[in-house]
Amino acid sequence: MSNDALDPAEASAEYGLPDPSDVLALDSLLAPDELALRQRIRDFTDQQIRPDIADWYEQGVFPMHLPAQLGELGVLGMHLEGYGCPGRSAVEYGLAAMELEAGDSGIRTFVSVQGSLAMSAIHKWGSEDQKQEWLPRMAAGEVIGCFALTEPTAGSDPSSMTTAARRDGTGEDAGWVLDGAKRWIGLASVADVMVVWARTDDGVRGFLVPAGTEGVTATPIGRKLSMRASIQCDVTFDGVRLGPEALLPGARGLSGPFSCLNEARYGIAWGAMGAARDSYEAALRYSMERLQFGKPLSGYQLTQEKLVNMLVEVQKGTMLALHLGRLKDSGRLRPEQISLAKLNNVREAITVAREARTILGGNGITLDYSPLRHAANLESVRTYEGTDEVHTLILGQHITGLPAFR
Amino acid sequence: MSNDALDPAEASAEYGLPDPSDVLALDSLLAPDELALRQRIRDFTDQQIRPDIADWYEQGVFPMHLPAQLGELGVLGMHLEGYGCPGRSAVEYGLAAMELEAGDSGIRTFVSVQGSLAMSAIHKWGSEDQKQEWLPRMAAGEVIGCFALTEPTAGSDPSSMTTAARRDGTGEDAGWVLDGAKRWIGLASVADVMVVWARTDDGVRGFLVPAGTEGVTATPIGRKLSMRASIQCDVTFDGVRLGPEALLPGARGLSGPFSCLNEARYGIAWGAMGAARDSYEAALRYSMERLQFGKPLSGYQLTQEKLVNMLVEVQKGTMLALHLGRLKDSGRLRPEQISLAKLNNVREAITVAREARTILGGNGITLDYSPLRHAANLESVRTYEGTDEVHTLILGQHITGLPAFR
Amino acid sequence: MSNDALDPAEASAEYGLPDPSDVLALDSLLAPDELALRQRIRDFTDQQIRPDIADWYEQGVFPMHLPAQLGELGVLGMHLEGYGCPGRSAVEYGLAAMELEAGDSGIRTFVSVQGSLAMSAIHKWGSEDQKQEWLPRMAAGEVIGCFALTEPTAGSDPSSMTTAARRDGTGEDAGWVLDGAKRWIGLASVADVMVVWARTDDGVRGFLVPAGTEGVTATPIGRKLSMRASIQCDVTFDGVRLGPEALLPGARGLSGPFSCLNEARYGIAWGAMGAARDSYEAALRYSMERLQFGKPLSGYQLTQEKLVNMLVEVQKGTMLALHLGRLKDSGRLRPEQISLAKLNNVREAITVAREARTILGGNGITLDYSPLRHAANLESVRTYEGTDEVHTLILGQHITGLPAFR
Amino acid sequence: MSNDALDPAEASAEYGLPDPSDVLALDSLLAPDELALRQRIRDFTDQQIRPDIADWYEQGVFPMHLPAQLGELGVLGMHLEGYGCPGRSAVEYGLAAMELEAGDSGIRTFVSVQGSLAMSAIHKWGSEDQKQEWLPRMAAGEVIGCFALTEPTAGSDPSSMTTAARRDGTGEDAGWVLDGAKRWIGLASVADVMVVWARTDDGVRGFLVPAGTEGVTATPIGRKLSMRASIQCDVTFDGVRLGPEALLPGARGLSGPFSCLNEARYGIAWGAMGAARDSYEAALRYSMERLQFGKPLSGYQLTQEKLVNMLVEVQKGTMLALHLGRLKDSGRLRPEQISLAKLNNVREAITVAREARTILGGNGITLDYSPLRHAANLESVRTYEGTDEVHTLILGQHITGLPAFR
Repeated sequence: MSNDALDPAEASAEYGLPDPSDVLALDSLLAPDELALRQRIRDFTDQQIRPDIADWYEQGVFPMHLPAQLGELGVLGMHLEGYGCPGRSAVEYGLAAMELEAGDSGIRTFVSVQGSLAMSAIHKWGSEDQKQEWLPRMAAGEVIGCFALTEPTAGSDPSSMTTAARRDGTGEDAGWVLDGAKRWIGLASVADVMVVWARTDDGVRGFLVPAGTEGVTATPIGRKLSMRASIQCDVTFDGVRLGPEALLPGARGLSGPFSCLNEARYGIAWGAMGAARDSYEAALRYSMERLQFGKPLSGYQLTQEKLVNMLVEVQKGTMLALHLGRLKDSGRLRPEQISLAKLNNVREAITVAREARTILGGNGITLDYSPLRHAANLESVRTYEGTDEVHTLILGQHITGLPAFR
Repeated sequence: MSNDALDPAEASAEYGLPDPSDVLALDSLLAPDELALRQRIRDFTDQQIRPDIADWYEQGVFPMHLPAQLGELGVLGMHLEGYGCPGRSAVEYGLAAMELEAGDSGIRTFVSVQGSLAMSAIHKWGSEDQKQEWLPRMAAGEVIGCFALTEPTAGSDPSSMTTAARRDGTGEDAGWVLDGAKRWIGLASVADVMVVWARTDDGVRGFLVPAGTEGVTATPIGRKLSMRASIQCDVTFDGVRLGPEALLPGARGLSGPFSCLNEARYGIAWGAMGAARDSYEAALRYSMERLQFGKPLSGYQLTQEKLVNMLVEVQKGTMLALHLGRLKDSGRLRPEQISLAKLNNVREAITVAREARTILGGNGITLDYSPLRHAANLESVRTYEGTDEVHTLILGQHITGLPAFR
Repeated sequence: MSNDALDPAEASAEYGLPDPSDVLALDSLLAPDELALRQRIRDFTDQQIRPDIADWYEQGVFPMHLPAQLGELGVLGMHLEGYGCPGRSAVEYGLAAMELEAGDSGIRTFVSVQGSLAMSAIHKWGSEDQKQEWLPRMAAGEVIGCFALTEPTAGSDPSSMTTAARRDGTGEDAGWVLDGAKRWIGLASVADVMVVWARTDDGVRGFLVPAGTEGVTATPIGRKLSMRASIQCDVTFDGVRLGPEALLPGARGLSGPFSCLNEARYGIAWGAMGAARDSYEAALRYSMERLQFGKPLSGYQLTQEKLVNMLVEVQKGTMLALHLGRLKDSGRLRPEQISLAKLNNVREAITVAREARTILGGNGITLDYSPLRHAANLESVRTYEGTDEVHTLILGQHITGLPAFR
Repeated sequence: MSNDALDPAEASAEYGLPDPSDVLALDSLLAPDELALRQRIRDFTDQQIRPDIADWYEQGVFPMHLPAQLGELGVLGMHLEGYGCPGRSAVEYGLAAMELEAGDSGIRTFVSVQGSLAMSAIHKWGSEDQKQEWLPRMAAGEVIGCFALTEPTAGSDPSSMTTAARRDGTGEDAGWVLDGAKRWIGLASVADVMVVWARTDDGVRGFLVPAGTEGVTATPIGRKLSMRASIQCDVTFDGVRLGPEALLPGARGLSGPFSCLNEARYGIAWGAMGAARDSYEAALRYSMERLQFGKPLSGYQLTQEKLVNMLVEVQKGTMLALHLGRLKDSGRLRPEQISLAKLNNVREAITVAREARTILGGNGITLDYSPLRHAANLESVRTYEGTDEVHTLILGQHITGLPAFR
């Protein structure tokens, strides 16, 4: 059995120690409501994710019973108002992302795709009918959504999009014909509705494409070494005919999908620290129980050095995420701040997870322990929603005024 | 289909470039025979490993047809003389390890376990009968051997061994009764013969335990995130009765198994650079074909920086391995030199593989590309035969005269 | 002339950019009073430190006119109440440390030695007479204090202290005789009063030793490669006779000096980020003005990568310092939190300063630019008040419960 | 007194240890003649450089008596044949560079400027008269040469050169008028002859300009934080009239000076490892003598980790330099190989020197110990003859075929 289910607070109590994951007392910056919500998500992770995540991961399956549970938990479209959405704060959303990703990045990714991408797009850019039709069921986890932006040949350059929608007829009632291909589309093969971005005569526009629409094919990408308890698909659109009501009326140009990406990146900055903290805690626990030359590993200088360096990064990254959350809740969060946090937190999280894994010795290569799984997952998280390079150059342009992308 | 099958020399020809994997012209340090042997192993890897490795890895299976092929290739017990062994030089053995691990660490690990551990133990410490019985068939790959030293509670501290063999009767004909448990024993569940190290009244001794001996149970460790195309087992010995002929007469004390570990570590120092080089080459190829903003990735400063840093480490590590090989062939190789090379080459290889993976973008998380698989594999390689910490402290003691293990 | 005098806010205005040193809008976490105080210190640094610091550093002199100016500025014993001290908050003290160290670590070090060490010791542990005698003049910068704790053979281990004070006579009026040696004592050769820590029959006690007391010798340590605009001394005490009034009545044991060290370390965590920010800003400015192949350096990917990585660390470290300040002002700051911040902020500051220097090309090796001077200074800062290793092991013990110092 | 004078071989003997600086037995790759020459240079460094280098550095002076001593030692123009030059092999030249830079980078730099730049240019491109006039006296150290290529506004881009020479009259006897400015010109203020590169109607050409020629001004760059025992100058040429015999007949275009730069870079790759080895040895010695908590520093895990990591890089870099030397002696050394070695060896050397310094605690910031001086010196070495970025992009172009300089 894995050690991973032990709650860090319990561990702290068990060993008579201060909370080793919050040396900086960042919890003192959270309100009682926020702490309570976090505890609720943490319990969910302990009870619904940790016991089975290794099996899901080994088998490469996304647990289809989870969306409804997550809906009940109140984390789908969590930060949205109305239409059955929980309407929680950005900080609360962040705390939830952190706790869920302490379980697994793939589960947090589902929540991001559903809430920050698909629901957020409909909430921001949809018609009243579209919102009424989809959002309540999506918030409940009865309906799964996905967000089709990335294309096979242009991971980091959405402006080179080739998927296109042309008018199917003329006049008010004219629908659309959609052709093209998308890649790395989370949950597409199980989604009930897709938010698809395509070029039109009128610039990039978004469309809602229900599951089962003729001409749509979603094929899960197989043989993955990362986020195996999640689904990413290749999606093709082959002469897909859509009615006029498929169009998201509110979004024009790439700023539409980009604003959703920023929502998702915000959640990633929090989530990555969840994976990092869980890795650190797993390594700390192991080091305190595993003897080497008759002494716990945790009593050696080389181990303490690793643990401390991990702790430092987890604490800084968490503080950064919280700062972003407070800015967001006060309406002042800017895209470059999100870039900074996404860049830093995922990069540091992967470093922490890799370092944690080294403390586990040979045992660390199995799914009995979380760090190597987290490290593998974070490979996906590091790439999606903007690689290190993309965010570095976004920030580089911000501070120098000079674009260096090309 | 993966890009990985393209030979680097061909790639170099295709793009009209110098050999981008050997900027330092290290090949000029190899004799024609050595180059020819390397080419033969490289071809084997291209033809017998690369086409299927992703599937083996995904399915978590060791390809049972490979041992015979590797026997035919002449890489099993490659550096041993007589008893059907190829009798090749240490450098040749190293080159073979490098090319096989360019395919997959799991395959090279099989060759190491078979040749450097099991066969080497029998060759060094076995009786004439034992050698005659096992070595020719092991060299041919007809018989698989394993090497049972590591125990569940003492990865880096073999001196705390608890597996024990006691005399079963008295006098010349007295056999042995073996009890205990081992962990991380490569190939144990498919092995025809195990070299088992156990405490006795006479210190640590080695025993040959044929497959099927009553009381021996070997259970593959499942749910691995590393070296999935390989097998490592938990092995238990429960009142296993062995005849007197089971004892390896030549080995007394831990120096016996340790000298085999040094053989294996030598091969690892080479092998890891194979995984690193293959990662670098995969990233280089991808970067030259993948366009970003209309220009190959390889034309960007941030990509070139990564490629160059990878190249530098691959070249230095390869030079280091070759230096060790020349020392070994001249009978002057010392354990601390092997520690230095094992420490450096695996550590740098894992860094290179991780960096290579970042160049592949989202596509890099699938088994269609080798770097993330190599990085995952190297997690095992980094741990087995001595972690970074163990080799650091071995070297630390060597240069300061002070042990700091405890 | 150096570029360094340009104010970052001006620079931002000049280039039509957002504030490139505060992408995270950390300034929004500061109150107007705090911002005003910071601006006042920043102006002082621009006017009184930057124009001459290169010359002071080159010549290896501490500017003896500065203490009075700093007293007038209100930064000596800044966080202390009464006795002529400014009584500012911990955050304000931190902001001042940051701005002064943006000028030079040696200047900030003087302020720390004076305020956090010498004045703080007298304020905490002194008699009313001692406070009245020394604190008002020290706050004004008329009198310089120093703090003699570290000994030549025990940089990181104050418990091995050998300097000793024995009773000189008996009864109430008995004075003391002090013998021993201290090293790395800041400002000792120009100090008017020394706070000296020594073993006694009653444990470690503190003494106030006025300049000119017979038997005291303070010799500046020469040929320094770091903090050349500052003074550190070897101090010897050879049969120094002190009256009974020399004793600091309030401090018994090492917790006395240690609580002062924590005051100083708190300021260091802020100050180091000042040196880092100034290095980043110097590199950013240079990169925007220096052309390479007809384009500003700042327009190249490799430069932007460096700048962004620097920015990220400066912002995180600043946020960490501010968090500590808020904890301190609310009476909740704990020693291990200070250890975390001292470890992180100095380590990251030195990395930032070194990286900044590489952007400056050959010009970066002169005192015309600040980064290499800051990097050199931070070598001292990294060592004093606890090396990386000491703080790592303090934190290691905190989180694991196991000491690994020995 | 400094510890630095202790010979590593002696240290090894003193502590009954193997040679802690050559764990890989790289010395076994050297011929007896090579070892003898190295010992001779090592002795020179011990006797002529180490005792005084701290004072020269502190005072910022180049020791003017050294050139003659170095001439006698046979290291000026060491690898050149004829004209009084020693005609030693590339490996011998490299070994000398390594031993001299173990003393100080500034001294090795003088040898490089004299031999690899100035003498090499005259030897390669000079007329018979020019060679006869200058080389013998330069080899003897009676005459100092310098090499004026770099310009103030173009450190890494010689193709933007603005210094120009125009014909002064017409016909065979026409001389030249030289105008322009150079920067970072080593030894220029004390040089007897300058090799100056300038644009002409016929492309870039080289000129020999004797000291004292009217219109030439060389001003040492002051307030340096690096290589203070060396001289670098700003040089201006203001209507400098030269006779026709000033022209170096053999060089046309930038390939002339570039081939000299490659000579110098080759020596740097060796030299940097000398500074690194000396830093490592200084830290090792200190750690064995300095007690902490009653045990030598060298007995702690955190110290051993640092020492071992330093050792590993010193050994790899030395092996790399030696490989280049063997290639050079066999006429096969290529520019991209030199770029790889310059990039790697200086970068690693600076890392080693910085790490070594941390072992020295507070004492490490003085000139009593070499590591921080080496680290400071290597800041210059890292920049001159091509920064990390320049060599990275040279190699990047080499392996990808795509230039990414602009």
